[in-house]
Amino acid sequence: MKTDRGFRIDHAKSASESATEIEADRIIRQIREIEAKSIWSAEHDNIPHPFPGMEFLTGRNIIVKTRLFRLLSKMPKGALLHAHLDVTVNASTLLKLALQQSAIHIRVPTPVSIGVPLSAIVPDFSVQHHDFHAEFLSLCDVSYVPNAWVSLRKAREMFSPTLGGPDGFEQWIIGALSINATEAYLTHNTNAKKLVYYAPIWSAYIRQFLVDNIADGVSYIELFIRYMFGADGREDVPHRDWLVAFDQVCNEIKQDLHDEGRDDDFFGAKIIYTAIKTVEPAGLDWYLEDCIALKQEFPYLVAGFDLVGDENLLRPLIDYLEPFLRFEERKKELGLDIPFIFHAGETCGDGTVADNNLYDAILLGTKRIGHGFSLVKHPSLLQICREKGILVEVCPISYEILRLTSSMPMHPLPVLVNNGIPVALSSDDPAVFGNMGLTYDFFQVLVASEITGLIMLGHFARDSITYSTLNDTEKSLVMGAWEKRWAKFVKEIVEFSEDLQ
Amino acid sequence: MKTDRGFRIDHAKSASESATEIEADRIIRQIREIEAKSIWSAEHDNIPHPFPGMEFLTGRNIIVKTRLFRLLSKMPKGALLHAHLDVTVNASTLLKLALQQSAIHIRVPTPVSIGVPLSAIVPDFSVQHHDFHAEFLSLCDVSYVPNAWVSLRKAREMFSPTLGGPDGFEQWIIGALSINATEAYLTHNTNAKKLVYYAPIWSAYIRQFLVDNIADGVSYIELFIRYMFGADGREDVPHRDWLVAFDQVCNEIKQDLHDEGRDDDFFGAKIIYTAIKTVEPAGLDWYLEDCIALKQEFPYLVAGFDLVGDENLLRPLIDYLEPFLRFEERKKELGLDIPFIFHAGETCGDGTVADNNLYDAILLGTKRIGHGFSLVKHPSLLQICREKGILVEVCPISYEILRLTSSMPMHPLPVLVNNGIPVALSSDDPAVFGNMGLTYDFFQVLVASEITGLIMLGHFARDSITYSTLNDTEKSLVMGAWEKRWAKFVKEIVEFSEDLQ
Repeated sequence: MKTDRGFRIDHAKSASESATEIEADRIIRQIREIEAKSIWSAEHDNIPHPFPGMEFLTGRNIIVKTRLFRLLSKMPKGALLHAHLDVTVNASTLLKLALQQSAIHIRVPTPVSIGVPLSAIVPDFSVQHHDFHAEFLSLCDVSYVPNAWVSLRKAREMFSPTLGGPDGFEQWIIGALSINATEAYLTHNTNAKKLVYYAPIWSAYIRQFLVDNIADGVSYIELFIRYMFGADGREDVPHRDWLVAFDQVCNEIKQDLHDEGRDDDFFGAKIIYTAIKTVEPAGLDWYLEDCIALKQEFPYLVAGFDLVGDENLLRPLIDYLEPFLRFEERKKELGLDIPFIFHAGETCGDGTVADNNLYDAILLGTKRIGHGFSLVKHPSLLQICREKGILVEVCPISYEILRLTSSMPMHPLPVLVNNGIPVALSSDDPAVFGNMGLTYDFFQVLVASEITGLIMLGHFARDSITYSTLNDTEKSLVMGAWEKRWAKFVKEIVEFSEDLQ
Repeated sequence: MKTDRGFRIDHAKSASESATEIEADRIIRQIREIEAKSIWSAEHDNIPHPFPGMEFLTGRNIIVKTRLFRLLSKMPKGALLHAHLDVTVNASTLLKLALQQSAIHIRVPTPVSIGVPLSAIVPDFSVQHHDFHAEFLSLCDVSYVPNAWVSLRKAREMFSPTLGGPDGFEQWIIGALSINATEAYLTHNTNAKKLVYYAPIWSAYIRQFLVDNIADGVSYIELFIRYMFGADGREDVPHRDWLVAFDQVCNEIKQDLHDEGRDDDFFGAKIIYTAIKTVEPAGLDWYLEDCIALKQEFPYLVAGFDLVGDENLLRPLIDYLEPFLRFEERKKELGLDIPFIFHAGETCGDGTVADNNLYDAILLGTKRIGHGFSLVKHPSLLQICREKGILVEVCPISYEILRLTSSMPMHPLPVLVNNGIPVALSSDDPAVFGNMGLTYDFFQVLVASEITGLIMLGHFARDSITYSTLNDTEKSLVMGAWEKRWAKFVKEIVEFSEDLQ
């Protein structure tokens, strides 16, 4: 058993554990054992047969009641390395943010009247220049001409009382946006994105996303981000303008934290430039050159390059081999460091295109693997990842909600950990899944194993910093701050353990 | 990719493949690809979103319609190494067999009348000596005294027409037996077993089980079997009497096949002596000595020893270390070969008692591992199994129905195969799960992978013979017969491929 666990980081580094860490780990295991009986074996309304690590959306109401969850919420989580900011905005948040923008307009293809069910009417959105003058004030106007733009705010205010007034309006829009948000995963062609990719909304959303994650103990973030619309409502606003906005939000937040004496709590955020696999291979060069230009201008903001989109349906990585090789040449010429950080193996398939992407991602020198769900099937690849130090970004709740696994105990994470593969736990699409921050994901991993304890969670956090794209100076800064917070966290668990039990 | 598949038996032995095997494999892959679109992507009544490898109980109606299934049903499957005969009798079969026995009686705790819902009345069964005289002829007799025994046949014949007559009786009994059969898994204390463990029924059931499996291409069987009742209705009939009966059924079937010129179709069946993990460690010696005595008298019938029962709830293997070590000594003294063939790791748990059983099973020298679902988490154990040649008995449909995995694509089988672990596909509890024979399990494995093809299925069949408890002479006999049938099978696929497509 000892030999078998020899690859595990918590085994390999057990000599460096402090007495406080060991005691805190023991206390957390004890609470887990107690709550497995007192909470997970008890009866709960409307949740038949609960168990630790059960389906997140069903179990969330139980999870938040546990002492384990409350304790983990205070844990410093390290870096969030795998999260998509685009098309993942919660519909009600999105509407709230949109209503703050007077430029946002709405239209419908058929007049809104009592005879037609609202759910059948799909609203469209646009950003109008400030000199645009809307012909109608309400979608319910008897003379409303189909597809005429109406101010979103006015449309809400003037929504017919017989249809529920402003509340009825919001309910309808949230429903329409939610459906579209789901479809957006595949089609990337919905009306919701017209709201999401509007710079003022985008900035507000980034702020909310960062603030929520910092509050949950995340101290550094690398985010996947795609194209967007500009503040003037035009598409294809230069990406540099948007990066400036992103940088500004980060700096504002850092300044706020500095003012509160909380410099250790957040180092910053970078973006991973992403294109979508719907792009023809010949068209990828444009994105790669765009990425290079941005890296040259904002070296501290661009962390890497990735391609996204459903691996089971879209092109394999190998289709882009030629532009990738040209990109490698260009980076060498220019002395730039823009690592590939590829999504690969996010599939249950065995020998399918998505499964085979793992080989190509590694051959192309990927710095980390996004998901790598099917990696466990490949003994040589596991060895390569261990020897080359290729971290796998594991998104526990995402896999379960997207039905790659049906609950945490069935998850292949222990296979990766037992093979000594560096792992960072990530939230993937938190705004859609409802797992904002990292506490939920850490929780699910902790309760689904008797081997993994608090010390292992600490190593996940450390590895998320070690395998980030930060340079050595930045890393030691972030790691130093994290270790200080971690030492404080485990000390508090031990000191308050009598109260806790 | 080649290195990564280097452990696979279909890769390691690719030089020995015949041109016919290669062509048959290609044809099968082609049919699989065609049917993935024509059948699995089509609409089916009441089965939303079907996919290859989907939940067996839902997908079975689609599976049987495929050409792939019809072809696989003709494949020689090799040995069935992991199947439980006890408490797995299909309820309607069981009733049919019981009605053939005049000694079987029934009783109910409350009179059967129109006012009481039948489903609330739980019938009990017994075997009565031939001189027993039943006081009542019908359970519906107005003067029926609760708990009085009535002949099962008479009770059916005389069942009140207002309750559905004989049909209503059968429906009620099947319902009651089905519920009990499920409960039987945990409690081992139901009324159904009073029918199952009655020698004449048992013999008929063994015959049916063997005949069904032979028809499906299984040519040798090792069965888990527990205690039983005797023909006179008493418990604890000497096990030797029962082994004689088992031997007799096997010999009758072999004689029938011989008369039909089908000697190659079936070599025979052996039993794996099993005790239940509810036994106290001190009480295990009795079973081990009983097993030794039977092996001495019937060396050709006793294949090995195992302990069964839910690993997550019952004692770990290590609790029985002392009796096991005494058993080892006794076998050495007596020069007997009775290998352990342990169930272990049939769990999603990580570091739990059931997961840890894998270490003890291997340390105790198990010849094979029953299930080993959690084996993939243990890199050293995988290496040991590969190097020592410890085969894993994988039961694809069982894991999915028992919710260890939620569909075939999520199954860890590819991890075992890619690590070069010998595997035999098995049916586990076919009478309960409805996967009688091995075609369903082979089918599910074939459609859930792009890597595994017909040639790999052939290796599963070969390994099931290689890792059986047969001696070398017997093995070469069974393997020789299998290879002849296999050559004929792949030749037929190739010859008829034009018709098939």
